[in-house]
Amino acid sequence: MKRSLAALVLALPLSLTAAPFSELTLSHADNLRQHAMQSDHAYRVVESLTTEIGPRLPGTHADQRAVDWAKARFEAMGFDSVRLEPVEVPHWERGFADARITLPFPQPLVITALGNSIATPDGGLEAAIIRFATLADLEAADPAAVKGKFVFIDHKMARFKDGRGYGPVVKARGRGAVAAAQKGAVGLLLRSVSTSGHRFAHTGVMRYVDGVTKIPAVALSGPDADQLTRMLALQSDIQVKLELDTLDHGVATSYNVIGEIHGSSKADEIVLIGAHLDSWDEGTGALDDGAGVGIVTAAAQHILALERRPQRTLRVVLYAAEEIGLIGAKAYRDRHKDTLDNHYIAAEADFGAGPIYRIDSRVNDSALSAFTLLTEQLAPLGVERGHNASWGGPDVSVLPVLGVPVAGLAMDGTDYFDYHHTPDDTLDKIKPEAIQQSAAVYTLFAWLMANAETELRPIPLPSQ
Amino acid sequence: MKRSLAALVLALPLSLTAAPFSELTLSHADNLRQHAMQSDHAYRVVESLTTEIGPRLPGTHADQRAVDWAKARFEAMGFDSVRLEPVEVPHWERGFADARITLPFPQPLVITALGNSIATPDGGLEAAIIRFATLADLEAADPAAVKGKFVFIDHKMARFKDGRGYGPVVKARGRGAVAAAQKGAVGLLLRSVSTSGHRFAHTGVMRYVDGVTKIPAVALSGPDADQLTRMLALQSDIQVKLELDTLDHGVATSYNVIGEIHGSSKADEIVLIGAHLDSWDEGTGALDDGAGVGIVTAAAQHILALERRPQRTLRVVLYAAEEIGLIGAKAYRDRHKDTLDNHYIAAEADFGAGPIYRIDSRVNDSALSAFTLLTEQLAPLGVERGHNASWGGPDVSVLPVLGVPVAGLAMDGTDYFDYHHTPDDTLDKIKPEAIQQSAAVYTLFAWLMANAETELRPIPLPSQ
Ligand SMILES: [Zn+2]
Ligand SMILES: [Zn+2]
Ligand SMILES: [Zn+2]
Ligand SMILES: [Zn+2]
Repeated sequence: MKRSLAALVLALPLSLTAAPFSELTLSHADNLRQHAMQSDHAYRVVESLTTEIGPRLPGTHADQRAVDWAKARFEAMGFDSVRLEPVEVPHWERGFADARITLPFPQPLVITALGNSIATPDGGLEAAIIRFATLADLEAADPAAVKGKFVFIDHKMARFKDGRGYGPVVKARGRGAVAAAQKGAVGLLLRSVSTSGHRFAHTGVMRYVDGVTKIPAVALSGPDADQLTRMLALQSDIQVKLELDTLDHGVATSYNVIGEIHGSSKADEIVLIGAHLDSWDEGTGALDDGAGVGIVTAAAQHILALERRPQRTLRVVLYAAEEIGLIGAKAYRDRHKDTLDNHYIAAEADFGAGPIYRIDSRVNDSALSAFTLLTEQLAPLGVERGHNASWGGPDVSVLPVLGVPVAGLAMDGTDYFDYHHTPDDTLDKIKPEAIQQSAAVYTLFAWLMANAETELRPIPLPSQ
Repeated sequence: MKRSLAALVLALPLSLTAAPFSELTLSHADNLRQHAMQSDHAYRVVESLTTEIGPRLPGTHADQRAVDWAKARFEAMGFDSVRLEPVEVPHWERGFADARITLPFPQPLVITALGNSIATPDGGLEAAIIRFATLADLEAADPAAVKGKFVFIDHKMARFKDGRGYGPVVKARGRGAVAAAQKGAVGLLLRSVSTSGHRFAHTGVMRYVDGVTKIPAVALSGPDADQLTRMLALQSDIQVKLELDTLDHGVATSYNVIGEIHGSSKADEIVLIGAHLDSWDEGTGALDDGAGVGIVTAAAQHILALERRPQRTLRVVLYAAEEIGLIGAKAYRDRHKDTLDNHYIAAEADFGAGPIYRIDSRVNDSALSAFTLLTEQLAPLGVERGHNASWGGPDVSVLPVLGVPVAGLAMDGTDYFDYHHTPDDTLDKIKPEAIQQSAAVYTLFAWLMANAETELRPIPLPSQ
């Protein structure tokens, strides 16, 4: 493999003034690939995090325990530096939640409060429901039909390998309550933003805006949404009672946890690989994003095991409070604004455990051949070359607009939204061979980028 | 088909003094098979029951609504008689339930109270856990190791088409709390009697016995049981806090709901097909046993649509309170003890929605050829002939010891215990084509048995 790639490099057009990767770099890449594909480190990291810490909602004691866990683990790994960067995070608590049909077909519903939702008034809230197939239908509705009711948005999420079914429906989670309140609704019942056929409700953050009445917002499991739809086909007046006991504890302090392997010759240039340490509170945050924590931690571990240091600094960032609005990501961006020009490239693992099937990028056109060669190194792992319009993953998505190159290591997310943000996001959903492959890909990506001879800037800026 | 079967009948040994089924009976069987395989009646019945009533725990208002629903539906179908037979049933209420690890890895657990469990003391119960791989291991344990702890039984259920993995582990649900209390335990945490990999806990009835301290008993979801086992591998002292708020409301009245198509020439002989109307409270009782209700109701509906009445009386029994100990079945047995000799044969559908792949029996050896011919009629539906040691299904299992012949129409239960007794037992888990086939099989079974010329008694008595 090494020899044929070297031959390939030599065969490139002369206009490439330097090969992106030296012979020595490629030789180490071979060693890293072999080592990583024998390593269970990523799986062991997520096993430890999800077992010993479990769910870790921003601002909670569990979140603090997760930070302590990460710091101790990073220190034990032998990073050249480990530090915590404080982040002010909202601390919201789920509390008790109950919803039931009261008339005409009394029975309980499986729901979950959306993150950030207010509580119901004491004694709960009872009202009829009105169904809309989509958020757009709600937005087009006559307020007279909505006033005083629960809005039920029954949108369906489609399953795709790349998760592109999520975007069109998650809008309703973010701003459905505002849209409903603007029409006079008393609450929002959202069909879960999920591909699961099981009776789990899918949480996730929602938003209020100034000047619009805050109303409580919950997600229904898919089977419960189907049940409501069947009931509405039988009777137009379906009464629901909702009790939510959510609490807003204001602001707490959490931390971005950062470990670095200092670069041997270009230490001030940063290759950033990240994941988020926080999770929703009902599962144990295994796929979201314990897997990402395992993948980027294992990548660093594999590189630390080499005798040779990378030329650039490898920075592993475990972000705080991604789930409630990229809070750690924005704090990182602001704190490091003076050195973002030194960020060679950034990528985040936050889409489950993999496997990774494609590598996308956002780099200067002149650097695309480096990505072609990078992908050649990943080809034995089943990775293909993708497009050059990547956003890099949630927490690093705030960086390209500031000129930072990013890569997107695309994970197979076919089943991701069966588990995401539900109680069912637990360790058993992670396939050891999938997370092993993903960690191997991140290992090679980090190593090759930290040693690449190619200028990646200026990048094509994303549309805003 | 009709002609070739008639030929087959004629080809049988002369020792068979009469063909089990007349030409006319077989001709109607052909019509019924065709009609039933076009009918969605069974699916529509379970859809109505699970949507309009939902869960129906014995003794509750929902249970009473289910009885009213069944009576109204039977009356609308045109049965020759419809009646309710009162049954005294225990009324137990689940109430609030919460369990969490308190030390050293604080996090919530997904549990459900086992049916009949007592509540915890005010303020809950906190103790260390001790794990046993099986009930037998607990029974062999030194009481000194168990005293003051929660017993955690981590038995695993194996998946089989015929559900035979259930029996070996469900014993621990029934008597695990007694076995644990006898060793001095403060509570029972049972790995769910389930094949599901999802985070649902599986309820079901448990028992206390006089003279043994009652302790609270709950089931853990599979992923939570795995989590406890991982924790115990890290630390021997794992503390759990349990709060259960179950309530024993004493005895309430429910009803066996009975519909009959009176026989044309042997009206005092009964062919009984049954299912149970009650369900656990967390799902909507779709597979257990809304499906059975749909199947036997549809079978009667298909036969009612014939111009011709069967020779024997077809009795459809929707039993009360199967889930808490075959209460309706025992009441039926006792109330009808003087006419059990007139019960030609009985069968119950209580193993999901099918399809049915085999027909077992418990009849006199001399009647086996009738079952061979019955199975010939079912062969186009994919049903094979089985054994002659059937117990007939839960509610009719009390009858063979009293001499009543039974049949077991074996359903494919490969996935049944993924949903059974969990919140996930909802309508969407029923495949319309599976329940259609099952209803067609019950239709032909009921028709052919109600018109058979064969004596089925005396039966081989079951061992007790
Ligand atoms: Zn995430
Ligand atoms: Zn998330
Ligand atoms: Zn049942
Ligand atoms: Zn049952």
